[in-house]
Amino acid sequence: MKTCFTFLSLLLLAVFTKQATSQPYKIQQPAPGVEIISQGVIDKFTPYTFCSEPPRIKAMSQLAPAKLPFNINDIRVKVTQRGALVDIPLDDDEHLYGFGLQIGTFNQRGLRKKPIVNDNPLNDVGYTHGPTTFYVSNKGYGILINTTRYTTFYCGTTAMNISGKPDEKTTYGGNSVLELYSHKSAVSHYVEADVPGAKGIEVFVFSGPDILTALQRYNLFSGGGTMPALWGLGVKYRVKADFKQDEVKKMANYFRQNQIPCDVIGLEPKWQTTAYSCSYVWNPEYFPSPQHLIDSMKLQGFHLNLWEHAFVNPKSPLYKPLKERSGNYLVWNGLVPDFADTSAAGTFARYHENTFVKEGISGFKLDECDNSNLGSGHAVWSFPEHSEFPSGLSGEQMHQVFGLLYQKTIYDIYKKRNTRTYLDVRASSSFASPYPASLYSDTYDHQEYIGMIVNSGFAGMLWSPEVRESTSIADLMRRSQTAVLSAQTLFNSWYLTNPPWLQIKIDENNHNQLMENAKQVEADIRKLLNFRMSLVPYLYNAFADYHFKGIPPFRALVMDYPTDKNTFNIADEYMIGKGILAAPLTEKQNERKVYLPNGNWYDYNTGKKFTGGQTYTIATSFTELPVFVKEGTILPLAKPVENVSPNTKFEITCCVYGDKARGTLFEDDGETFDLEQGNYNSLTLTYDGKKGNLTRSGSFKNHRYQIKNWEVIK
Amino acid sequence: MKTCFTFLSLLLLAVFTKQATSQPYKIQQPAPGVEIISQGVIDKFTPYTFCSEPPRIKAMSQLAPAKLPFNINDIRVKVTQRGALVDIPLDDDEHLYGFGLQIGTFNQRGLRKKPIVNDNPLNDVGYTHGPTTFYVSNKGYGILINTTRYTTFYCGTTAMNISGKPDEKTTYGGNSVLELYSHKSAVSHYVEADVPGAKGIEVFVFSGPDILTALQRYNLFSGGGTMPALWGLGVKYRVKADFKQDEVKKMANYFRQNQIPCDVIGLEPKWQTTAYSCSYVWNPEYFPSPQHLIDSMKLQGFHLNLWEHAFVNPKSPLYKPLKERSGNYLVWNGLVPDFADTSAAGTFARYHENTFVKEGISGFKLDECDNSNLGSGHAVWSFPEHSEFPSGLSGEQMHQVFGLLYQKTIYDIYKKRNTRTYLDVRASSSFASPYPASLYSDTYDHQEYIGMIVNSGFAGMLWSPEVRESTSIADLMRRSQTAVLSAQTLFNSWYLTNPPWLQIKIDENNHNQLMENAKQVEADIRKLLNFRMSLVPYLYNAFADYHFKGIPPFRALVMDYPTDKNTFNIADEYMIGKGILAAPLTEKQNERKVYLPNGNWYDYNTGKKFTGGQTYTIATSFTELPVFVKEGTILPLAKPVENVSPNTKFEITCCVYGDKARGTLFEDDGETFDLEQGNYNSLTLTYDGKKGNLTRSGSFKNHRYQIKNWEVIK
Repeated sequence: MKTCFTFLSLLLLAVFTKQATSQPYKIQQPAPGVEIISQGVIDKFTPYTFCSEPPRIKAMSQLAPAKLPFNINDIRVKVTQRGALVDIPLDDDEHLYGFGLQIGTFNQRGLRKKPIVNDNPLNDVGYTHGPTTFYVSNKGYGILINTTRYTTFYCGTTAMNISGKPDEKTTYGGNSVLELYSHKSAVSHYVEADVPGAKGIEVFVFSGPDILTALQRYNLFSGGGTMPALWGLGVKYRVKADFKQDEVKKMANYFRQNQIPCDVIGLEPKWQTTAYSCSYVWNPEYFPSPQHLIDSMKLQGFHLNLWEHAFVNPKSPLYKPLKERSGNYLVWNGLVPDFADTSAAGTFARYHENTFVKEGISGFKLDECDNSNLGSGHAVWSFPEHSEFPSGLSGEQMHQVFGLLYQKTIYDIYKKRNTRTYLDVRASSSFASPYPASLYSDTYDHQEYIGMIVNSGFAGMLWSPEVRESTSIADLMRRSQTAVLSAQTLFNSWYLTNPPWLQIKIDENNHNQLMENAKQVEADIRKLLNFRMSLVPYLYNAFADYHFKGIPPFRALVMDYPTDKNTFNIADEYMIGKGILAAPLTEKQNERKVYLPNGNWYDYNTGKKFTGGQTYTIATSFTELPVFVKEGTILPLAKPVENVSPNTKFEITCCVYGDKARGTLFEDDGETFDLEQGNYNSLTLTYDGKKGNLTRSGSFKNHRYQIKNWEVIK
Repeated sequence: MKTCFTFLSLLLLAVFTKQATSQPYKIQQPAPGVEIISQGVIDKFTPYTFCSEPPRIKAMSQLAPAKLPFNINDIRVKVTQRGALVDIPLDDDEHLYGFGLQIGTFNQRGLRKKPIVNDNPLNDVGYTHGPTTFYVSNKGYGILINTTRYTTFYCGTTAMNISGKPDEKTTYGGNSVLELYSHKSAVSHYVEADVPGAKGIEVFVFSGPDILTALQRYNLFSGGGTMPALWGLGVKYRVKADFKQDEVKKMANYFRQNQIPCDVIGLEPKWQTTAYSCSYVWNPEYFPSPQHLIDSMKLQGFHLNLWEHAFVNPKSPLYKPLKERSGNYLVWNGLVPDFADTSAAGTFARYHENTFVKEGISGFKLDECDNSNLGSGHAVWSFPEHSEFPSGLSGEQMHQVFGLLYQKTIYDIYKKRNTRTYLDVRASSSFASPYPASLYSDTYDHQEYIGMIVNSGFAGMLWSPEVRESTSIADLMRRSQTAVLSAQTLFNSWYLTNPPWLQIKIDENNHNQLMENAKQVEADIRKLLNFRMSLVPYLYNAFADYHFKGIPPFRALVMDYPTDKNTFNIADEYMIGKGILAAPLTEKQNERKVYLPNGNWYDYNTGKKFTGGQTYTIATSFTELPVFVKEGTILPLAKPVENVSPNTKFEITCCVYGDKARGTLFEDDGETFDLEQGNYNSLTLTYDGKKGNLTRSGSFKNHRYQIKNWEVIK
């Protein structure tokens, strides 16, 4: 009897092995709810090998018990002459999100996406500043193909020619294009990931039970979401590229004299002696005394941020030490440092630390670390995909992680010095959650910029919908609103003499011909920026949730309401922290349709209460913010400050939405990594229907929040 | 002394070997002026392995002696873990053309191009219906990377990090974007071709001495340019997709009753029982008696053409025999036949021959043999790149040659039956010159359509700028002019009940609400189409030059004037045959700038003479054709016929441009391959300043041309 059973088992195993061509593969479990399937020869460098921070195992173990909607063994992995192919089961009613900072699409079901790094990701092919080979499903799990190689995902679009009878269910049978395209049903029950060139592959499976938990696991496994310096949540203003030292000072004075909030001033290319490629040397003609500038800025409460890219000019002191540790191609005649080589990264970091960070530079803008525009044959720059790097990475692979490694290199400087920062960066990748960097783009479609806030939450990334020029006052105001409701409020005036709110037209602006109503527009912008400053404590708390729990501070509605099918395709609304829903408008609208999920919601501007599960048309003026607050929320709003210093005390008004409500705040020094040692406080705000109460737990001594007021909105 | 010299040589050799990592490679010379460099393990299938026709060695040996502007050994080939990399020398003042039927760019110098097959090739990344890994240089040579793998060309955009001092000449040193992009000089002295996945590579080098000779060698090596059926040079009209048999007949009658030239009527999807995917079975509801239709059409002088694509529906008689000989993925639930497998191609061909060709179907429209739109994540169809085919081709490789193999499969049917055809096709590839197929596209930008005529000549391809809907009468007329001046004059009315010249608006058209001036517009169109019919003998002669000498019938000015730098970037004028220069207008223009190269030229419409080497502004009405005739040309224009039958006699007026002039005509049966056995006549027309003379040589008995008249234009 026993023999017979074993024989049958062997037979079944043989059948099984034939079907799943390349099973069995290895499965490891490196953290609770995370499994790694691996097959074949894995590349020496994968996105995961570059992780700066260890996984937050403890936090992960506190999440809901791991659950997958399919048997993990149903994932098929095949390694062929072409590369690796991974098939992941897909249900008929499943919806997919992710692939990094996607610009043109949201729900990726039914699409083919190739998430590769690109500086001008037009169309919807998958190109982006921040590609990830990672997606999540509304069924509650995430899949990451751990490779730096260009990977194409077919999200349920491929049907196989299998033996036996044809599948009648998926027969189209139409004989016109109209019939063809009206046929929307699924054609495949797999997502397929095609990785040409790979000799083996790792698949990371992040379990739910729900989409948010899967993302929390991803972010925590990456080392936890970033915790930017507290001042990073204020306003950043980048001055005109050809400003000289005195003009920068003048601009700084303008902000303080006019009580317009600003925490960071950014300098653009000409601070260097040569920028394309970079010397990383102060330009004495423009900045004769940089240390004086840094110090005087600091006195006025400004942090200074320097533009740069990573291509090293022959005139740079970094050229000689990096020459042999760079790729075999040049960009703008500059070296491409091999940041995967710790020695090259160390050389780059040491120079930056000694020359800039020690002197008080608070951050950098890492430009052009993406690849040049693949959407047009013109403007070709960056290194070719066939480049070879000393580490062994190819150009293709380096493209996918160049921005990531650049962030890591700069982040490591600040981490070592126990100082937090907040960077601008134009490329990122998988496992980037711990980096305090906000992505930006030269593209400028406002609706796409809103969509990128929504998508950023699926990617462990932050996105900065920067304000540059505007076609109208409406455009300026709506863009500024979106900037206020994003991970970084940034005005990038690199080609404007005056702030855009004094003159929206570029030419007039640069001839100091201000708009007639400049002062009125300035006042309106001030209102918006003051709202941003009011929101800083709430945002900071949302970032603490990102850091310690992996909850994205900005996230699509489907993440919080995964069973509400109305949210599956909403790409223009998003949650900020626990209780705010934002629904930005563009210059084309003075009102818009807003879907509010189940529960009750309050219009922040009018206090009007709305029943959820429905769509409303809501008008919002230029000086209001298009946000809704969830019933049961205590929104702790600060009295606006012009900038955040280490000793800033926030005077808080607790806005209570509903009969009973709750809120939290996070308190620490705001600028070191001491929070990792537990040196912080958690504040809980409660309102029981009659009065508000604050409890504070933790060991951080220097209290930052003073509750001044409770305001109940019913 | 001798020892010393040898030692030095060895040293030099060592240095050389180090630099050119993978030399020496093998060099073969398969034909005069063609060399093949080969290195590593060559793929079993390359574009060249699919060539239907042998190279025309004799014709090649009659070309000018081969000459290359560089030493062939300076081409570098490297095979690495990533794939193959080929570096081809590039001069500072060199200009490059090709990469197939490029849609957005012309002079490819300074660009990165990835010529891969795609159905909606937006932007300029290199995607096209007809990619080739082939380019030519104005210095007089052509390079073809003989691979079906996706290949990226960096046309002088990559600079290497080599040992020694940095190259001061290529230092940018600017520190602003403005300075950066104003810097236009070459950064590299190589074109680099990156072929990921290849384990070896073949490089075909086509020598000049000039660009046209290099192209002639390419076309002749491919088997010679195609010779379409003579009737193919007339007008093709595709009827509405849901037309039934009687409606098709009615439309045919309309043409004959109104004396509007038409040679071919095309049926669209609904002639089949199922089209997405295809059954290849007549739809009895729409076409109850196809044989009757074919025969009655023939009586009226029409050829019938059938739309189809290659994805085989489960309901098709071809399904069962092809099931095991198809790729492992389905498209629209249809099989993807492995056309690289001769048995699969044979099955497909036999069915088509027996069911359609034997019954009198004169040609096919091969739709959707390109890949779905990579420029958008939406509308995903076609097989994935990781598909596997029984022949061993991957999906990526199959995409690059699917349209080519489809053409070959259909062409072989007709060739076997000694009957010529003229096909429509939506994808092609390298070495396609012998196929009688004109490419078409769903894109519809008129300026791009003109540019594609110009680029087609660099690719061994023909392009059909079809007329569909129009935004205005001007748009209709200008598009029709371009169609008349192209390889195929095609009106594709697949969604129009009436011809577009009776109603340009789609809705009104389909409700039979004709324009008030419909008859006038019809008369204007008739004029243009009559001009086309007048031009048929001249065009046919140009095709004979394509077939026997490899001279593209439609070609960029730079091909005929390679030393005139004014032609290097002209993408909107082209030569037709020996003596006509076309400069089409779009709906936006009533006049345009026309550059006329050295020599004297005549405006065809006014007879006005122009001195070349200059640019003129020329107005052209809707019913004129924007063409110029080169001094010394005899243009043999026929009295228009409504269609071309085997017995059509053309009454020719010889238009003589200049004091002394010359022209040629080609005479054969127009519909068989007997011309390959020399069964044709060459006619030479000369004008000595006083009178014209015709000489005829050859063995073809049935004279087709009757010279009626000599008209001298001075």
